[in-house]
This record gives sequence, structure tokens and C-alpha cells, in this order.
Amino acid sequence: MKKIGMLGGIGWPSTIEYYRLLCELSQAYHRDKCFDGPVPMPEIVIESLSMNFTVNHRGSSVPGSWHAWDSYLNQALRRLQAAGAQIIVIASVTPHTRLAEISVGIEVPVVSIYQAIGDYCRAENIDKLLLLGTGPTMSSPAFGQAMQSFAVQAFSPPTDDLKAGTVDIIHRLYRNQLEGAAGDIDDLVRNCLSSENLAIDFTTTAVCLGCTELPTAFADEKNRPSFSRDGICYLNSTVLHARAVFEACVI
Amino acid sequence: MKKIGMLGGIGWPSTIEYYRLLCELSQAYHRDKCFDGPVPMPEIVIESLSMNFTVNHRGSSVPGSWHAWDSYLNQALRRLQAAGAQIIVIASVTPHTRLAEISVGIEVPVVSIYQAIGDYCRAENIDKLLLLGTGPTMSSPAFGQAMQSFAVQAFSPPTDDLKAGTVDIIHRLYRNQLEGAAGDIDDLVRNCLSSENLAIDFTTTAVCLGCTELPTAFADEKNRPSFSRDGICYLNSTVLHARAVFEACVI
Repeated sequence: MKKIGMLGGIGWPSTIEYYRLLCELSQAYHRDKCFDGPVPMPEIVIESLSMNFTVNHRGSSVPGSWHAWDSYLNQALRRLQAAGAQIIVIASVTPHTRLAEISVGIEVPVVSIYQAIGDYCRAENIDKLLLLGTGPTMSSPAFGQAMQSFAVQAFSPPTDDLKAGTVDIIHRLYRNQLEGAAGDIDDLVRNCLSSENLAIDFTTTAVCLGCTELPTAFADEKNRPSFSRDGICYLNSTVLHARAVFEACVI
Repeated sequence: MKKIGMLGGIGWPSTIEYYRLLCELSQAYHRDKCFDGPVPMPEIVIESLSMNFTVNHRGSSVPGSWHAWDSYLNQALRRLQAAGAQIIVIASVTPHTRLAEISVGIEVPVVSIYQAIGDYCRAENIDKLLLLGTGPTMSSPAFGQAMQSFAVQAFSPPTDDLKAGTVDIIHRLYRNQLEGAAGDIDDLVRNCLSSENLAIDFTTTAVCLGCTELPTAFADEKNRPSFSRDGICYLNSTVLHARAVFEACVI
């Protein structure tokens, strides 16, 4: 198995989920295989960063405003590479909006969460995604453009209030405050759909939990790539991404 | 806060617990402090190793037999140091038996789990410990010698069967198979005490869960340094160690 390098800590609850999922995927992978001793695990190096720094140093549309942020993540990726990582996973959706900038000098392949989500949508005939994520994820064109190559149309919550409501929930989850979060996400999704006055067909449309903290709200569904609640279909971006990383690890 | 380097993966369930505890300790530490944005977290670099390698390469009393094992752990500690770790935590009790050998070339201070356990015993007037741990932990004199400097007498399960029973439970926990483990540990402890025919006073004697996987069996007690069940006092080595690491991190 290849050594995995993980950029984590932004936030820490989803880093735990990535690590747990990778270890459990290795256990499942080895279930019918012969080996001596404990279940083989990939070596994993994790750089857990300070989210206080990343959130306080987010840039804007002003040129150069992302410099400190880009540099902080790039240095961490370089440390993962120096530690022998053979594939890299960024355990967070937001940094994928600036993948080109933070990957300067990184020769190790980075397993993209966009690719993992897009592949799943294509396999499951999902062609429309309501994207719930952080401010940068919802405002940047990066996610939508990436989905277009999978023939998937992505749209964010339609009002500033609904976007702010999404971010509020995410900030509670950053602290692992799970109480009431699942119901609040359900309500938010219903408000998004009624505000848009959309007739949503949940056989081909899904809600993308497009911040890796969001799936932690649904503890009972923590191992499933997608799940339904009251007719709403949710995609668990963390599970989709961790599965793609493990596949790349054992190829 | 200092950057923490963690040697993990042996096994992975307790690595999750160390990481979670450190992040929650940082949240508690910052509760009444002023800061902008998300709760500040220490940067943490984790090298998660393959327990298949470490268990299959354990040595014996034959000179040189630990060479591959020592080298594997030493290289990982060197990578943590190279990644900028300012304090190191080995998230496992067993490697502490060979701390001198694996720390060659490491200038960063390693926060010892023996010290964390010994300090707690002294503060709580505990002078006797039943040590449950891996084979190397129970057979090496290292733990007992370390406890002597805290005026604590440590003893292992008194028969080979009871030692093997301890190791069996640990091997289930390495896979995160928690079902029935807590009750099995309770039974094992009672068998140890009755086999010794000891009149144990649980105000001054405790059972040291001396493998960091063992506390994962007691999910309800996962944040407590010690807890009682049916009159038996248990020490949670993971919580004691994580607290000592966080204290060293913020000094």
C-alpha cells in the first residue's frame, strides 16, 4: 500500500473521520486475504493545521490577498511530500478551490474531492447538486466548473441568509457541537428548495454535503456514501473522498 | 502553542482518541480567552505506522532481535522532528519500554506516559497498580522500574493464562471491536485478584489500563483520567498522557 499524506485539522472532527474510514477500509480490504499478525494498514502521515490561522487568513478577490493562506497550506503539503507520502488527500473541501496555488512544487498526486464526487454522480445518474459548503466553496466557481465536466449542474443556497445559515452550522461542527445540527441542515435544505420554488426530483438531484464537517452531523450515516432523510438525498463527501483515496492507495 | 508530533497507528483507535482529546483540551483551554475566528489549535503532525510491521518485528531477549523494530520507530520519530515537532508523544505504551533505543538522534522532548501515570498516582495517593498491557509491556521491567520512582508498586496478571487473556482483548480492540470488551476486562481483573488471593484496597490500588487501546473499551469514560466500576478503580492511560502532552504544549 502507498503511504498516504493527509492535510488535516481544517477542521479536526472530519480529520478523525477520514483517518477512521481509511483504517476501516483497510480492515475490510484485508478481510479475506492471508497475512500474519494484525491487519495491515497503510502508513499515514497527517499534518493537522490550525483552522484559526486558515480562516483568519482567507483572501478575497484582491490580488495577492491569499498569499499567506496559500503559503501555509503549500508548506504543509511540502512536509507531507518530504515525509514520504506517495498520494495526498486534503481532508477539507475549501482548499480544493485553490489547488493549483497550494500545489506548487508538489509532485505527489493529490486525490481530488471534486473527482470523487463527480465520479459518484456519474455512476448514480445524479445530474444536479445543491452545494452546501463554506463561504469560499459556495462563492468560488471552482466546484461548479469541476462538476460541469461530469455533466452535473451545481447550485448554492439561493439567498445570503441561507448561505449564512449554512456557514453557521459548519462553525458549530468545527467544534464538534453536533446537537441539533442534522435537523438544522434538513430545515435549511427545505428552505433552499422552497425559496427557489424548485420541483426537485431526488432520484437525479442530491444535496452535496460539500464541507467535510457537514457529514459529522449525521452520525448514523457516517459510513455511507449517500443516504436519504425525509425524501432528501444527501451525498457524504467525506466517505466518497476517503474511498477514492483508499482505492488510489492499493492500486 | 508548540507543534506536537505524534507517533500513532499502533493501534489506530487510540490514535483517534489522543487526537480528539488534544483538540478538545485546546477548546477547553481557550474557552475564556479572547481570540478572533475559530478556536486556536496546536499544529499536530502524526506519523501513523503499520501495526502489522511492529507486531511482526517485535524482538526477544536475543541481542539484536529488536533492530528492525527500533529502526522503524526511530525513523518515524526523526520524520516528526524534521516536520517541526517541538514536543513528541508516542501514542502507545509498548514503545516506552524501548524509549532509549528508538530516541537516538531525537532532540525534541518526548512526553513519557510513565511520567503521566506516575504523577497521577502520586497526586491521588495510589501506591499499587495492576498493570494490563501488551506482552512486551507486561514482561519488560521498564514499567515497574519507572513506577518505583513514584513509590508505586506495579504487578502484572499473575498467570500466563490471564496475561494471554489480556492480550486477546487488546487484539480485538486493535480492530476497534468494542463489543463485550469492557465486561471481559472486568472479569479478567476479578480473576487476577482472586487468583492472587489479594485483599485489594481500591482507595490506594488501581488497575492501569496500560495499553492505550484498553480505555477504548469504556466509551462512557473516554474523557476521565480514572473511573470506578463495581468497586474497581481504573486508570485511563490515554487521558493521563494526552493531558500531560497538552500541558507541555502550552507551557
